[in-house]
Amino acid sequence: MNPLTKRSENYSKWYNEIVVRSGLAEFSGVRGFMILKPYGYSLWDRMKTILDKMLKLTGHQNVYFPLLIPKSLFSKEKEHTKIFSEGCAVITHSRLIKKNQEELIVDPDSKLQEELVIRPTSESIIWKTYKRWIQSYRDLPILFNQWGNALRWEMRTRLFLRTTEFLWQEGHTAHSTEKEAIEETIKILNIYTNFSEKFMAIPVLQGIKPYMDKFSGSEKTYCIEALMQDGKALQMGTSHFLGQNFSKAFDVTFTNFNGEKEYVWSTSWGVSTRLIGGLIMSHSDDKGLILPPKIAPIQVVIIPICYKKQHPPTSIHEISIKILNSLEKKGIRVKYDDKTIWTPGWKFHEYEMKGIPIRISIGKNEIQNEKVEIFRRDTCEKIYISWINLKNSIPKLLDEIQKNIYKKAVQRTQKLILKSDHYNDFKHKINHSGGFIFAHWDGTKNTGKKIQEETEATIRCIPISNEKEKGKCIYSGKPSLQRVIFSKSY
Amino acid sequence: MNPLTKRSENYSKWYNEIVVRSGLAEFSGVRGFMILKPYGYSLWDRMKTILDKMLKLTGHQNVYFPLLIPKSLFSKEKEHTKIFSEGCAVITHSRLIKKNQEELIVDPDSKLQEELVIRPTSESIIWKTYKRWIQSYRDLPILFNQWGNALRWEMRTRLFLRTTEFLWQEGHTAHSTEKEAIEETIKILNIYTNFSEKFMAIPVLQGIKPYMDKFSGSEKTYCIEALMQDGKALQMGTSHFLGQNFSKAFDVTFTNFNGEKEYVWSTSWGVSTRLIGGLIMSHSDDKGLILPPKIAPIQVVIIPICYKKQHPPTSIHEISIKILNSLEKKGIRVKYDDKTIWTPGWKFHEYEMKGIPIRISIGKNEIQNEKVEIFRRDTCEKIYISWINLKNSIPKLLDEIQKNIYKKAVQRTQKLILKSDHYNDFKHKINHSGGFIFAHWDGTKNTGKKIQEETEATIRCIPISNEKEKGKCIYSGKPSLQRVIFSKSY
Repeated sequence: MNPLTKRSENYSKWYNEIVVRSGLAEFSGVRGFMILKPYGYSLWDRMKTILDKMLKLTGHQNVYFPLLIPKSLFSKEKEHTKIFSEGCAVITHSRLIKKNQEELIVDPDSKLQEELVIRPTSESIIWKTYKRWIQSYRDLPILFNQWGNALRWEMRTRLFLRTTEFLWQEGHTAHSTEKEAIEETIKILNIYTNFSEKFMAIPVLQGIKPYMDKFSGSEKTYCIEALMQDGKALQMGTSHFLGQNFSKAFDVTFTNFNGEKEYVWSTSWGVSTRLIGGLIMSHSDDKGLILPPKIAPIQVVIIPICYKKQHPPTSIHEISIKILNSLEKKGIRVKYDDKTIWTPGWKFHEYEMKGIPIRISIGKNEIQNEKVEIFRRDTCEKIYISWINLKNSIPKLLDEIQKNIYKKAVQRTQKLILKSDHYNDFKHKINHSGGFIFAHWDGTKNTGKKIQEETEATIRCIPISNEKEKGKCIYSGKPSLQRVIFSKSY
Repeated sequence: MNPLTKRSENYSKWYNEIVVRSGLAEFSGVRGFMILKPYGYSLWDRMKTILDKMLKLTGHQNVYFPLLIPKSLFSKEKEHTKIFSEGCAVITHSRLIKKNQEELIVDPDSKLQEELVIRPTSESIIWKTYKRWIQSYRDLPILFNQWGNALRWEMRTRLFLRTTEFLWQEGHTAHSTEKEAIEETIKILNIYTNFSEKFMAIPVLQGIKPYMDKFSGSEKTYCIEALMQDGKALQMGTSHFLGQNFSKAFDVTFTNFNGEKEYVWSTSWGVSTRLIGGLIMSHSDDKGLILPPKIAPIQVVIIPICYKKQHPPTSIHEISIKILNSLEKKGIRVKYDDKTIWTPGWKFHEYEMKGIPIRISIGKNEIQNEKVEIFRRDTCEKIYISWINLKNSIPKLLDEIQKNIYKKAVQRTQKLILKSDHYNDFKHKINHSGGFIFAHWDGTKNTGKKIQEETEATIRCIPISNEKEKGKCIYSGKPSLQRVIFSKSY
């Protein structure tokens, strides 16, 4: 196998190669659409399982709404419509027919009375329905979540990071008070933060999007932002406080405790397969993926050492199965790979590429010494552990690996949390180190745009825990009350 | 609450009411599209979890392919195209714009170079991809499955039974020999049968579809058919042996062990949210749903007996929580409903409607006697069990309920497995008792069509375990070698 392109040579090429070579995903024949291969899907499934549990523990329930949204519904919330109508899949007909017994064409007679749009997000169809479901304060709160696909036409697509169709969860909640809706928005932001840091081992900053970048139709968009190894930011998830915008657009009121009618307050929030892009760019190295044990579909791989095309000797096979069983009993996700078509060396490379946290290899020496060789993917260290200690050592080692991967990401990120007070210094930092650059901004859309044009950096967010600090806008020199975070981003 | 329409009065109305009133699903504002509500989605999720495990244990892996299929791909396999192009969602444009600052219209400038179709099933996009993935016998078999949505335009829709968009799993496998592909087709048929009988408690007949009803593009379609309470059949799942049809249409060959090129053999198979329709119509009664414990999202509900708008007395609350915890420790899915806005009586009705297998109610009497009242939803019997026996009795009772529901369905079905040798008798049976009617058929499409026109009955399948038996076609009198199964169906 050829080695991967090095990160230092071409980060973007390295990324594309790693996605394909580790067997996570690849582009399909349909432009902008990707195929999640078994390894990629099982990773997403694992992430789903964890996040779903967190959402259920906080009272959320799953539902499923229609894929298609009639144009008339889609156009109810003006700001929302404006953005999402710019790139959406419009269904106009319901039949294809043969022309001249040959070519398949759209049957003009099958034109729909009203065009339908594939959901770019489901606020409109959901709020149309909530109108039917919500009458009284007793019907609130509604805390619903949906796992599914969505579609936004993208010009420049990248595997996981930006695809026309993506898999995600979208939460849509309805509340009787503004306070409760804001609390829900923050609660979800904290769930996303925990999920990202504790499971994906990716440290994030919590913030609020500047007004010009908020979700169309929302009052305020909260986000978590992470820093990739190349110093660029990635938005990992968003949680929107929607105010009463959708309840007003869809005329959804409820009778409160005092018998008065009020518009409902609401939130929406989502994370998508994009997270996998962030995962890859946070931890992986020039040998391939590095996956944190808590989300790795396979945590330990056992490889018997023997000649190609030969089955392992009975002694090796038996001890491998014993180890497999004892680890599985501990709830560890283990794979025993005794396929005979590949050499052990080939398998070593393959599982390093796939980022399996621990590799156990067992050959004749190991049998003699009653030890196994352990390879840690995160540090690429080899250690030897005796058989009898394995079932206690492996869970501990997995914990240690999880912590180490997170620690490395935290250290890397902290080094790139920078301040800048002069535009030249700012430009230098953006172009050389990258990172989250805390700088003053005059609060205008125009300044944000100018800085982006000149440096490619955008305002990622106003940090939620920001201290007020008077200063001057790095670009215009106008007064500013707090620093915001700039970065180039994906 | 008004009682449900009785099955004996209007079966179809009863069905629609039960779906909505039990909180499983309802139609959305988009014609033919349904909304899976939390209870319906959790039921589907439970079914998914079980079936997914069965598929993984037999070596299948999950993947995800694009939602949209380019028209040119869609038209590769001729027979397949013919059927699915008749009712499909065709995407022709990628943008909506404002006309006169007001109405939202399709932007004519956004016309796609090639139209895209929402997958009615994914053979075409998958076989286009398999061409890239399959070169050698070493790449085979491919045993992939996909959980997702699909869309087929339907004129007459019914909740769960026939909806334009549906959720399902679709398996797509590739093999090096015909024998292996046929074995896979049968293996899946057996998995579906087990899933239906052991978990959903629905007895099924395994059969082969008559040639005119096979899946378009397949060589042979295997199916499982179940009998509903009104004597009509429901197709619960299909498993298709595709021969080399798709590998030829997409030119997918592999180099075999001897270095020769061959076309790949394949199968596809699926079950959908339609199964939930079968579940409802198999077991439920005039009081509401009856769910087999193994797939019930909630197996036991605990209801404290107290006045409306009052919290239960501490003694009742404490013992309820104790029971909740001890049952959850046993792996039972329990809900404790101490909401104060409803009376216990209202809750009793509600959970009977939802088909929760066991209801435990705890009031002052129960506290005094250290017993609880147990209500079995399947038989509507009440029994009393002392606290200390609960954690052993409940798992046993759940098993018993599962078995009883299945036994009832088997008995009901067996009574309606009928033979008929005369057309008048056949018509009488079809119209009065309904059921699976074993009768001789001359093997022609025309006879099948005539019988359907005159009786609404169709040939459900040729039973897989059929004994050869010479006879005369019930309609044409022409010779026949075996009986086939006729029934009205959903």
